Amino acid sequence: VTTPTGILSDRDNLRWANERFYHALESFDLAAMDELWAHEPWVQCIHPGWEALRGWDEVRKSFEEIFASTRWLRVTATAVREVVLGDLGIVSCAEDITLGGGDDVGLAVAHATNLFRRTHAGWRMVHHHASAAPVRVTQPFSGTVQ
Amino acid sequence: VTTPTGILSDRDNLRWANERFYHALESFDLAAMDELWAHEPWVQCIHPGWEALRGWDEVRKSFEEIFASTRWLRVTATAVREVVLGDLGIVSCAEDITLGGGDDVGLAVAHATNLFRRTHAGWRMVHHHASAAPVRVTQPFSGTVQ
Repeated sequence: VTTPTGILSDRDNLRWANERFYHALESFDLAAMDELWAHEPWVQCIHPGWEALRGWDEVRKSFEEIFASTRWLRVTATAVREVVLGDLGIVSCAEDITLGGGDDVGLAVAHATNLFRRTHAGWRMVHHHASAAPVRVTQPFSGTVQ
Repeated sequence: VTTPTGILSDRDNLRWANERFYHALESFDLAAMDELWAHEPWVQCIHPGWEALRGWDEVRKSFEEIFASTRWLRVTATAVREVVLGDLGIVSCAEDITLGGGDDVGLAVAHATNLFRRTHAGWRMVHHHASAAPVRVTQPFSGTVQ
């Protein structure tokens, strides 16, 4: 995945940064997270059901933990909406999640608020808040898909 | 509650706008919400356990519903952190919630990401994302406090 900065509009680039986040998440790609996130002490991250994390070091560590404890993960961002206000981009979306850990397959839907800051090198993530959406279908999967 | 704009710093005013939000919520004060929120079609609001709401009309309606169905509500914002990036203010906090509806008292802790946009008339709310925090103590209350 390469970033086509300069070819796309500002808003397209913001949407693209959001896509890169989910791609890095699915790929367990810590180097891509390093590149995408702003390495600031005030960035924040709230994973579904977690305590709020503050500062890039803590946020990075949380991705390391998730990558180490998850067998595989697919996240599809749907209902993506982006708003650009000056140098800040607000992206909200639903996350359709399928993940494997142990012998089970989990399904979940989450809401996400993702904030990006415009820099000379492109949009950098500064905030991720994801939480379980009401239509939750998380369950152990051990039957036949009909 | 009056807004001491001009006396306080930019960041203090942002924190104050956040306080006004929780005060309006506790007071079931729709007029204060009208004043605080930006009346834009792209503002968003995610209440804990709700679907994402989009546009001021939908957001306003949700507060009407909450105010109509809740007997009383106390929300204390703790661990408040604010970041100002250009004309956008990011406030994150924990919400310590006590509420009454029917015969029960509910207790809950939520994480909130609140976004405000700077205008000539002060900070206006454009995004509220609140979700249940892991340390949740929601339970019907029907005993003696010891």
